[in-house]
Order: sequence, then structure tokens, then C-alpha cells
Amino acid sequence: MKPLDVLGELLENQVMVRLKNGLVVKGKLKAFDIHINLVLEDASFEDNDVEKKVKNMFLRGDMVIFIS
Amino acid sequence: MKPLDVLGELLENQVMVRLKNGLVVKGKLKAFDIHINLVLEDASFEDNDVEKKVKNMFLRGDMVIFIS
Amino acid sequence: MKPLDVLGELLENQVMVRLKNGLVVKGKLKAFDIHINLVLEDASFEDNDVEKKVKNMFLRGDMVIFIS
Amino acid sequence: MKPLDVLGELLENQVMVRLKNGLVVKGKLKAFDIHINLVLEDASFEDNDVEKKVKNMFLRGDMVIFIS
Amino acid sequence: MKPLDVLGELLENQVMVRLKNGLVVKGKLKAFDIHINLVLEDASFEDNDVEKKVKNMFLRGDMVIFIS
Amino acid sequence: MKPLDVLGELLENQVMVRLKNGLVVKGKLKAFDIHINLVLEDASFEDNDVEKKVKNMFLRGDMVIFIS
Amino acid sequence: MKPLDVLGELLENQVMVRLKNGLVVKGKLKAFDIHINLVLEDASFEDNDVEKKVKNMFLRGDMVIFIS
Repeated sequence: MKPLDVLGELLENQVMVRLKNGLVVKGKLKAFDIHINLVLEDASFEDNDVEKKVKNMFLRGDMVIFIS
Repeated sequence: MKPLDVLGELLENQVMVRLKNGLVVKGKLKAFDIHINLVLEDASFEDNDVEKKVKNMFLRGDMVIFIS
Repeated sequence: MKPLDVLGELLENQVMVRLKNGLVVKGKLKAFDIHINLVLEDASFEDNDVEKKVKNMFLRGDMVIFIS
Repeated sequence: MKPLDVLGELLENQVMVRLKNGLVVKGKLKAFDIHINLVLEDASFEDNDVEKKVKNMFLRGDMVIFIS
Repeated sequence: MKPLDVLGELLENQVMVRLKNGLVVKGKLKAFDIHINLVLEDASFEDNDVEKKVKNMFLRGDMVIFIS
Repeated sequence: MKPLDVLGELLENQVMVRLKNGLVVKGKLKAFDIHINLVLEDASFEDNDVEKKVKNMFLRGDMVIFIS
Repeated sequence: MKPLDVLGELLENQVMVRLKNGLVVKGKLKAFDIHINLVLEDASFEDNDVEKKVKNMFLRGDMVIFIS
């Protein structure tokens, strides 16, 4: 089993994504590709102590540290 | 469905793009490619607390953190 | 023997992964690929002096310094 | 339409290019390629509060944030 | 003779690897590939003035400054 | 005309190269390739307020911001 | 003539290599490849004001600013 197969098992599940700029984004994983570009649905993150929510978020893969 | 398909659904819609240098740019998504290079129409962003507007903006994909 | 062969021998073993942002993550190595993307099971790491645990963690390979 | 097509429409026009090191360069767009390498004619930029002008400037694409 | 041939001559020898994050790791070179990913046996390094030792270390090549 | 064609026209001419680490190097452009690796003849640059000169300098392309 | 041809002419000569982390390494150029990975013989560099010498040094190309 390869790492991307494990990501595939996370589709439609709630995930937490930690980004290189310190942001932590939560949402439902709707899509990913080999660059680890992600799409999260009903995504939320804290921006200067204010929680922000967006319906759909496209995350560029090179910003990802880890997904859990 | 892949992440770029989701970007395709955002064409002609208002998007918010957060960049690695901290800028947040808003505008209508007119074009994108696999590098996540973007073209925004009627784009606006804050530069040292001054809002700036440009008719067309070509954004290099490697600066993108997320698009929503 | 190549470095990735050595990683292969670590599958199903406990590993320690040091990341470029300073985090050290421990867990059981479940999967890896040529980009050094990793999947760790029962992963734990210290975040601001608080130990955090996650069942499955996908780690992007470009964040890895070393694995031992 | 792809982002590079939009760049093509900017050829022979005055553009403003914001670079990752903070410089903003203005000039007439004479050439570009898929790496977003650019050539600007009659380019000007501020360097430590002094405006500098050069007849032709080759700009490496990986320094570009956006072009407008 | 190419640089990787020289690395090949270092196999099974003690090497010192200086990393981009300032760490210096010593150990016996057991494996390398074209990305300069390395495996060191009986590797040691100083971490906050404490010497640490690990039996086998996989080092990601893009962290390497030099090997001697 | 593509950006590299414009570089070709600069061969055997005096150029100024601004690097990502802040150095500005002047010299005669003797060679370049698609990575924007450059060779400058009779190159000079300021290093801690001391002007240094070298007969031939090979410059790695990924350090280049612009050439004029 | 291409930049790598010029590097070829430097083989077996003393060179000075400036690295992105500020180190300056001197030695005899024994090998190089298209990534600008280098091997220097009888290499010396200053580390915290102490001169260090190594018999053979493999230098990863992406650390190179220039070679002269």
C-alpha cells in the first residue's frame, strides 16, 4: 500500500491539514491528486484568532506538512 | 473528481486567493492551469492598508496557498 | 542496496521522523513512496509542549529531514 | 483560455510585475515563456528609494508573484 | 568521473554530512541515490548539545550541503 | 521572440545580474543555458563593501532575479 | 559554448565556490554534473572562524551560488 492509497481511504472523511505557514485547516476531504493538492468541503481555520469558514477550499499541495 | 476539476467549477466565479507572502487577492477566476497559475479579473488586494485594484492579474501558481 | 530499500525494511516498525519545521513525529511506518511521502500509524508529536496523537498521519515527503 | 494566453494578450503593453523579493518592476512586456521568464523593455523599479531604469530586463520566472 | 562516482567510493566509509538546518551527522555510508538520499549506519549528531545516536538513519537528499 | 532569444542577443555584452542573496554582479556574458546558468567574464561584485574581481564566474541560474 | 563547457575547462583547477549558506569553499575541482553537484579535492572552508580541511568533498549543486 502506498501513501496515496491511504489518502484515498480518507476521502469523504473529516481531516485536519497542517500547512507550512502554520495554519491548520479542518474539513471534509473531497479530492486530492499526486501533488497532494486537496479540496476540502466546509473548511474552517483560525486566522488571527478568528475562525473562518469556507464552503470549498482548494489547497495547493506544496503547502501541506501532514494530513490526519 | 480531482482538485483541478473543482477549480474548473469555480471559473467565472468570485474567488479569494491567499498567497504565501500574506497577500489575499479577490477577483473573478478567468483561467487556471496545472501549475495553479491563475488569471483574476477585477482583482483587488490590500497593499500596506491601501486597497488596490487591477483589471487583469496573472498570478504565478507557486505563490498560492489556497483558493476559496 | 539503495536508500529506499532501507526504508522498505523499516515498514511496520516504529520510526522517528524529524521534519524541516522542527517537529519530531513518532509512529509505525505503514507506507512510503519515492517522494518520501510517509504514512505513520498511531503517530505522536509534541505541539507547543502538548503531546498529540493521531491514528493515521500522511506526511508530505518534502518536509522530511531524516527517518530513524 | 489558459493563463498563458492571457499573458500573450499583454505583449507590447505596459505591465507591472511584483517580485518575491518585494521589488515592483514596470515596463513593456516584450516576451515570456512557460516558466514565466519575462523580458521587459524600458523597465523601471525602485531600489532603496532610487528609481532605476534599464533598456531591457530579463526577469527569471520563479521570482514573479503576479503581473498586471 | 562524475560526482556520484566519488560518492560510490565513499560507501562503507565513515562520512560527515552537513545539513541545511545546521546539523552535522556522522556515520558509515551504506547507501545513496541520485537525489543524494543517504543511509548512514551508527549515525550520530548533536541535538541541543546532546549527542544522539541511531542505528540506521535515512537522510533526505535535499537537506544535504556537503559530504566529506 | 522568447526570453532566451533576448538573452542570446546579450552575449558578449556587459550585463548586470541581480542575485537572490542581494549580490549584484557585473561582467561580460559569455554563455547561458535554459536554467539561466550564466558565465560572466571579468566579473566584479561588492562583498562587504570590498569590490572583488574574478576572471571567469559560473553563476547558478536559480540564484538570478534579473539580468539587464 | 554553454556554461557547463566552461565548468569543464575548470576541471583539475583550483576553484572558489560560494554557497547559499554563506560558506566559501576552496579546492581543486575534480568532478561536476548537470545539477552542478561538485567534488572538490583538498577542500578548505572557514567554519566559525576556524579553517577546516577535508581530503574530498561532495557538494550538492543546489547550494551553489557561483564558482570562480
